[in-house]
Amino acid sequence: MSRQKIMLDKLARTFQIRNKLLRQSLAECLGTLILVMFGCGAVAQLVLSGGTHARFMTVNFAFGFGATLGILVCGQVSGGHLNPAVTFALCLLGRERWRKFPMYFLFQTIGAFFGAAIIFGMYYDALWDFPEAFNMTDSNPTAGIFATYPAKHLTLLNGFFDQFIGTAALIVCILAIVDPYNNPIPQGLEAFTVGFVVLVIGLSMGFNSGYAVNPARDLGPRIFTAMAGWGMEVFTMRQGWFLVPIFAPFLGTIVGTMIYQLMVGFHVEGEVRDRKEEEERNVRLTNVSSKEENKDTY
Amino acid sequence: MSRQKIMLDKLARTFQIRNKLLRQSLAECLGTLILVMFGCGAVAQLVLSGGTHARFMTVNFAFGFGATLGILVCGQVSGGHLNPAVTFALCLLGRERWRKFPMYFLFQTIGAFFGAAIIFGMYYDALWDFPEAFNMTDSNPTAGIFATYPAKHLTLLNGFFDQFIGTAALIVCILAIVDPYNNPIPQGLEAFTVGFVVLVIGLSMGFNSGYAVNPARDLGPRIFTAMAGWGMEVFTMRQGWFLVPIFAPFLGTIVGTMIYQLMVGFHVEGEVRDRKEEEERNVRLTNVSSKEENKDTY
Amino acid sequence: MSRQKIMLDKLARTFQIRNKLLRQSLAECLGTLILVMFGCGAVAQLVLSGGTHARFMTVNFAFGFGATLGILVCGQVSGGHLNPAVTFALCLLGRERWRKFPMYFLFQTIGAFFGAAIIFGMYYDALWDFPEAFNMTDSNPTAGIFATYPAKHLTLLNGFFDQFIGTAALIVCILAIVDPYNNPIPQGLEAFTVGFVVLVIGLSMGFNSGYAVNPARDLGPRIFTAMAGWGMEVFTMRQGWFLVPIFAPFLGTIVGTMIYQLMVGFHVEGEVRDRKEEEERNVRLTNVSSKEENKDTY
Amino acid sequence: MSRQKIMLDKLARTFQIRNKLLRQSLAECLGTLILVMFGCGAVAQLVLSGGTHARFMTVNFAFGFGATLGILVCGQVSGGHLNPAVTFALCLLGRERWRKFPMYFLFQTIGAFFGAAIIFGMYYDALWDFPEAFNMTDSNPTAGIFATYPAKHLTLLNGFFDQFIGTAALIVCILAIVDPYNNPIPQGLEAFTVGFVVLVIGLSMGFNSGYAVNPARDLGPRIFTAMAGWGMEVFTMRQGWFLVPIFAPFLGTIVGTMIYQLMVGFHVEGEVRDRKEEEERNVRLTNVSSKEENKDTY
Repeated sequence: MSRQKIMLDKLARTFQIRNKLLRQSLAECLGTLILVMFGCGAVAQLVLSGGTHARFMTVNFAFGFGATLGILVCGQVSGGHLNPAVTFALCLLGRERWRKFPMYFLFQTIGAFFGAAIIFGMYYDALWDFPEAFNMTDSNPTAGIFATYPAKHLTLLNGFFDQFIGTAALIVCILAIVDPYNNPIPQGLEAFTVGFVVLVIGLSMGFNSGYAVNPARDLGPRIFTAMAGWGMEVFTMRQGWFLVPIFAPFLGTIVGTMIYQLMVGFHVEGEVRDRKEEEERNVRLTNVSSKEENKDTY
Repeated sequence: MSRQKIMLDKLARTFQIRNKLLRQSLAECLGTLILVMFGCGAVAQLVLSGGTHARFMTVNFAFGFGATLGILVCGQVSGGHLNPAVTFALCLLGRERWRKFPMYFLFQTIGAFFGAAIIFGMYYDALWDFPEAFNMTDSNPTAGIFATYPAKHLTLLNGFFDQFIGTAALIVCILAIVDPYNNPIPQGLEAFTVGFVVLVIGLSMGFNSGYAVNPARDLGPRIFTAMAGWGMEVFTMRQGWFLVPIFAPFLGTIVGTMIYQLMVGFHVEGEVRDRKEEEERNVRLTNVSSKEENKDTY
Repeated sequence: MSRQKIMLDKLARTFQIRNKLLRQSLAECLGTLILVMFGCGAVAQLVLSGGTHARFMTVNFAFGFGATLGILVCGQVSGGHLNPAVTFALCLLGRERWRKFPMYFLFQTIGAFFGAAIIFGMYYDALWDFPEAFNMTDSNPTAGIFATYPAKHLTLLNGFFDQFIGTAALIVCILAIVDPYNNPIPQGLEAFTVGFVVLVIGLSMGFNSGYAVNPARDLGPRIFTAMAGWGMEVFTMRQGWFLVPIFAPFLGTIVGTMIYQLMVGFHVEGEVRDRKEEEERNVRLTNVSSKEENKDTY
Repeated sequence: MSRQKIMLDKLARTFQIRNKLLRQSLAECLGTLILVMFGCGAVAQLVLSGGTHARFMTVNFAFGFGATLGILVCGQVSGGHLNPAVTFALCLLGRERWRKFPMYFLFQTIGAFFGAAIIFGMYYDALWDFPEAFNMTDSNPTAGIFATYPAKHLTLLNGFFDQFIGTAALIVCILAIVDPYNNPIPQGLEAFTVGFVVLVIGLSMGFNSGYAVNPARDLGPRIFTAMAGWGMEVFTMRQGWFLVPIFAPFLGTIVGTMIYQLMVGFHVEGEVRDRKEEEERNVRLTNVSSKEENKDTY
C-alpha cells in the first residue's frame, strides 16, 4: 500500500502540468471528447440499428446529459464551455480573456475529433455491416453520425437562421445560468441545467439540421470523417454547408448576449451597482456630517 | 480589455431600466418567449417531421423543461410566472399586487407571440414543404403547432372542464411549491419542480386539446398565426374554441387555490400563526408576572 | 389590498382544522388524489388515443413524477406516504403510531377515488368515443385506465408474487431514502427520489399487471369504476384479482422491511448506538477517574 | 408501542454484524441486487412484451436509475460501487484497500445472481408463455434478459474494444464525480450523477452488446441462467463471449484511470499540493525571519 502511494505520488509529480492555460485547454479537450463521444454514439446507435435501439429523442438525451457529464469532468478546471460559442460569449462580456478563445477553440475541436474517432472504432463492425457505409450521397445517413447535414427541405439561408437562432437560445439560457448577479440555481447544479438546455434545444430545434450550435462539435468530427473514408465531399456537399455551423453560431452568440443583457442582465447588474453607489454616497455623507458634527464640538 | 470593460459599463448604464414593474414585465416577456419557443418548436418538430424526429412525449418534455428554463431566466427578477393564471393565483392570495396582473398578462402574451414567430422563421422552409401548410381545416395540423385546438371527440363543455381541471392541478402543485409555510424543496429547485408539473400535466392531460392551461401561451401564438397566413379562422373555428383556454384557466385557478388552501394551506399557515400568538401571550404573561414580582420586591 | 388580507385571514381562521390527525389525513387524501389523477390520466391518454399520444413509458413517468408531486404537496404535513404499504412499513419500525394506519388507509383510498373521478370527467367525451367503452371483457382496456388487471399470461399465484416483489422493492428503496441513520440524499430531495423509485418499478415490473404496489391506489379507483358504469365485474373478474393488490403489498412490506433491516438498517443503527454507549462509558470512566483524582488531592 | 420498541431493539442487537468488511460486502450485495433486478426486469419487460411495454430506451433508464437507487441503498455503508471495475479503479488510486476487491467482487456477483433470480420468478409465467423460452439459439432473446450477448455484426475483437471503451468512459466520469480535489457536485447527488452516466452509456454504447461494463452484473445472472434451464451454452456461445465482459472492463478501468489522471486529476491534485507546500515554506521562512528579527532585538 505504502509503495503504491509513493509510486502514485511520483507519477503525479512527473505528469503535472503547471501552465494554467494548457491545463485548462486539456480539460476542455477531455470534456468536449465526452460530449461528442456520447452524443455521436447515440446517433450511431440510431442510424446503425435502424431505429430498434434508439429514437431521435434518445440522441437528444445523450447530447444533453453528455454535455452535463463533460462539464462535470472539466468544469472545475476550465469552466466547462465545451463550445467555442460559449467561450466567445464570456469573452464578449469580459468574463474570460480573449487569448483563451483560440486555445479553447483548438482543443475543443481536437476533443471532438477524438470523440468521433472513438465512436468510429466502437461501431467499426456495425459500420461495415451497414449497406454502402462510406458512400457520400444525400440519402446515406452514415456521415451524419459524426457531423451535421441539412435536411432536404432546408435552404442555405434558412439553415443559417436555424443555427443562428439555436445558438442564440443556448447563449441566453447559459448566460442566465452563470450570471453572477442573477444566480438562480444551487451551486454545483449548473452542469445539469446546461444539460437540460441542450436537451430542450434538441427536442425543439433538431429537425432542420441536427442542431450543431457548436463549431467545435461539428468541425472536429467532420475532419475525422474526411480522413476516415467519406472523403472531401463532407466539405463540398450542399454548397459548403460545413461553413454554416462554424460561422452562424458566433453571430447567434452576439445577438443572444445582446438580448439577455438588454432584457435581464443590465438591469440586475445595474440594481446591484446602484445599491453599491448609494451606500458609498451614504458613507461619504455620514463622513461629511460627522466632520461637521466634529466641527460643532470644537 | 480595459477599454472593453469601459464600453460594457457605458452600455449597461445607457440601457438600464429603473422602473421596476417594466423591468419585471420585460423579464416575464423573455421567460414566456423561451417557454413558447421551445414548446411550440417541439410541436413543429413533431408535426413537420411526421413523427420521425419527435413523439407527443417529446413535446411534453420540451414544454416542461422549457418552463424550467424560462423560470430560470427571469425568476430572480419577476418571479417567473410565465402564465397569467399563476399571476392571478398569487394576486388572489395577496402575495402579488393586483396592478401587476394586467402588465404581466400583456407582456407574457407578447413574449408568447414572438416565441411563435421565432419558430415560424426557423421552420419556414419545412412549413412550405408541408402539404397545404396554411390551409385551416380540421385535419390540418400546422396551425396546431402554435395555438391549441380541441380533438375531434371533444365538446365545448368537456373542453372547458379539461382546461379548468388542468389549470387547477397546475395551481395546486405550484402553490405547494411556493408556499412559504410549507417549504418542501431546496431553494433554487422551484424552477425544476414546476417543469416537472408541466411535464406531468402534458403526460396525463394532453390528449383532449393539447393542455394550454395558460391564456398567454395560447393567445399570443394564435394572434401570430392569424397574421402569418392562417387567417381569422384560428379564432372562429370550433365555435370560438379560442375563448376556452383564455377563460377556463382563471376559473381553474380560483378552484385550485381554494382546494389547496382548504386541504393544506390554511392549516400550515394557521399552525405557524397559533404558535406565534401563543408565544406573544407567554411574553405578555411573563411581563405581567415579572411586574408582579417587581411589586413584591418593593 | 388591506380588505383582501382581512378577508383572507378570516377565511383562514374559519376553515382551519386543529385536529392534527385529521389535518394529516386530509393532506394524504390530496396527495394520493394527485398521484392517481396524474397516473391514471396517463393511462387514459395511452388507451384512449390508441398510442398516438402516449406509450407505456409515459405512464411510468406520470406515476413516478405524480408521486413526487403528491409527496411535495402533502409531505410537510403528513409525511407524504400516499400508500398504505408505506404507512404500514413505518408503523412496523415504530416510526409512526399504529392508529394512523387506518385513518391514512381510508383517506388515501378516498383520494384515489376522487383522482379517478376527475380523470373520468376529463376524458368523458373520449370514453364515449371509444368502442364499447363500458363493457367488461378481457380484451377491453377501458377499466384498466383506473384499476389494475392481470395480463392474460399471468396466474393468480404469479400475480401475487409480482405484487409481493414489487412492493418489497419499493419498501427497501424508501426505507433507505428515509433511514435516519443512513441519510444519503440532501434534505428536500426525498420526494424526487421516491418518484424515481416508482418510475423504475414501472419500467421493470409493469408488464405483468400494471404495478399497483399500493392498496389505496388500486381499491379507490376500482370502487369508482364499479359505480361509474363498469359494474361489479371489476371485483369478480379473474377469480377475484382485486384482492391481490390489496393483500400482497402488505406481505411485501413485511419482507422488504426485514431485508433492508437485516442487510443495512440494523448495522448502521447499531453503529450509532455502539458509539453512543461507548461515549457514555467513557464519560462514566472519566467521572470515576476524576473522583479518584479528587480523592488524591485530599 | 413500548413492547414493540423493545422487540425491535432486541432484533437489532441480535442481527447486528460488527465486522465492517462483511457489513460492507452485504450492502454491496443488496445494492447490486437492486441494480440488476431493475435493469434486467426492464429487459424482460422489453423482450417478453414484444415491445408494447418497453423500448430499448426504457432499459437504459432502468439501468441508470437502478444504479442510482442501488447506490442510495448501500452508499453510506460501502461506497456504493455495484461494479468490480469501480472497486478496482479506487484500489488503483489507493483510495480503497486491495483486500476489499475480492470480497466486493464476490458479493456483487452474488447480488447480481439473486437480482436475476427475482426477475426470473416475477416473469415466470410470461417466460413460459414466450415461444421456445429456454432454447439457446442466436435469435432467441430470452437468455439476453439476464446476461449480455453480442449482436450478429460484432466480432470478438470489436466486442472487446466495445467493453473496453464503455468501461473507460464510465470510469472517467465516475472519477470526476468522486475526485476529492475536483468536487463538482453537491454532496448527496453523486448517486444521481452516476445514474446519468449509466443512462448515457446505454443510450450511446448499447447497440453492440448491451453495455455490460460490469463483470459482476454480467457473470452473476449468466451463472443463474445456466442453472435455471438455458444450460452451459450461455458460456460456450459465440466463442466464449462471456469472458469479454469479465476481462475487458478491468483493462478499460486501467486506461480510463490513466486518461482522467493525466488530463485532469494529477493537475488539480498537484495544484492543491503546490499550494500546501508553498504555505509550509512560507511558514518556515516566517519562522526563520522572525528568529532573525528576534536576534536583532538582542
